[in-house]
Amino acid sequence: MPDLSILITNDDGIYAPGIWHLKEALNDLGQVIVVAPVAEKSAVGHAITLSDPLRVQEIDRQGRFFGYAVNGTPADCVKLGVHCLLKKKPDLVVSGINQGPNTAINIIYSGTVSAAAEGTIMGIPSLAVSLASFSKQEFSYAKKIARSMASKIIENGLPSGTLLNVNVPAVPESEIEGIEITRQGKGRYEESFDRRTDPNNRTYYWLTGKRMILDTDDDVDDIVVMHNKVSVTPIHYDLTNHHFSEELKTWRFRTE
Amino acid sequence: MPDLSILITNDDGIYAPGIWHLKEALNDLGQVIVVAPVAEKSAVGHAITLSDPLRVQEIDRQGRFFGYAVNGTPADCVKLGVHCLLKKKPDLVVSGINQGPNTAINIIYSGTVSAAAEGTIMGIPSLAVSLASFSKQEFSYAKKIARSMASKIIENGLPSGTLLNVNVPAVPESEIEGIEITRQGKGRYEESFDRRTDPNNRTYYWLTGKRMILDTDDDVDDIVVMHNKVSVTPIHYDLTNHHFSEELKTWRFRTE
Repeated sequence: MPDLSILITNDDGIYAPGIWHLKEALNDLGQVIVVAPVAEKSAVGHAITLSDPLRVQEIDRQGRFFGYAVNGTPADCVKLGVHCLLKKKPDLVVSGINQGPNTAINIIYSGTVSAAAEGTIMGIPSLAVSLASFSKQEFSYAKKIARSMASKIIENGLPSGTLLNVNVPAVPESEIEGIEITRQGKGRYEESFDRRTDPNNRTYYWLTGKRMILDTDDDVDDIVVMHNKVSVTPIHYDLTNHHFSEELKTWRFRTE
Repeated sequence: MPDLSILITNDDGIYAPGIWHLKEALNDLGQVIVVAPVAEKSAVGHAITLSDPLRVQEIDRQGRFFGYAVNGTPADCVKLGVHCLLKKKPDLVVSGINQGPNTAINIIYSGTVSAAAEGTIMGIPSLAVSLASFSKQEFSYAKKIARSMASKIIENGLPSGTLLNVNVPAVPESEIEGIEITRQGKGRYEESFDRRTDPNNRTYYWLTGKRMILDTDDDVDDIVVMHNKVSVTPIHYDLTNHHFSEELKTWRFRTE
């Protein structure tokens, strides 16, 4: 498949270990072009930059050209990459490998998943890959999974508007128990703010939170990962709650 | 309903006309507390601030206290408002009135809708209201609609995880043709980047785009607004594409 081109990006920034591993994993599937945020952009959701100019830098890693860094969000990287940096529309967008899970509520806040969503919106089959640990650098099986998923998507395509969100347990391959097709869980954060005072005696707040797993079913992303299985969730952005529409039609709105 | 409290926010910033009108519209439904970004935060999607401290300022408008301004995103405002600024969990979150439509693809990028989504995630019934024009200051009917919707939600509640996304045509009330329950359309942008050179001879890129309406069905948000009707879309964040899951189970993933 020498003519294939694959745009890769992330939200941990172009210098993160995960995107290095992702490039290595996909290199022999086609031409891999890195377009990633110059700095970490976690939890940016589907932010795009409208009010500021975007700039592009060519970045070397380990002494050779690695990719393009953009002073924007993951979604900006995909847009700018496709429109301005790649010679043709890529055959695949892969975002990751994120350091930390993107399951349940995290999908909504995730820059990693939103980059894949941006690919999907642009009509390009897209994949988000995350390693389910914020610290363990156990990327070897995640690389194999990323490569396998990318190959399969190139082979089979994906339905219009749908991306795959993949979470890989951060354990050695020998401890992996399988691969499951899952649904997005309901897990969220129990949050609070630290209220602090800065050296100039001004108050500031810092968000802090503890992740809660609120599911028990075996087909939920959080649970599958907890059982040392790879979670593969098909994600789309048809946000209409069709079930509720009928009831809503019975509401009477008065504006007098 | 003297004990009701309503948190209002937006993504156009605390000094925008829309949030002034929204406060006026809701003032007699309960205690209305404004917590909004200090500056415009359009297209931030569901971004939250994790790596920076948040600060709060008390803001006056027209000579009296208007609300709290936060140096963060709309989702930050809802989180910080509920956890730190309000005495109790509010009964309702209302985001808007946005200057510009939030229909179809815009829902994904919208800070206005993401603020309502944040309320929903926190278990609070939530509503996003947008005026379907980027320039016309025709807020009078949108105010009536915001008030009517807020009352109805207080009366009936909303299903867990579902918010209402309301778009109001920017025309006088006499030209409004009705209110419709709709679904999210497929309209998106035909985008490109302006490639420019700054005074220091460095290249920068600026996103530009033309909104395309890609639907024709009468029950789609974009179409309804085009016909001078108010569009009410129930939105949820269950992103799993359940239809595709069965097919995906037949894929064979190889990692060797």
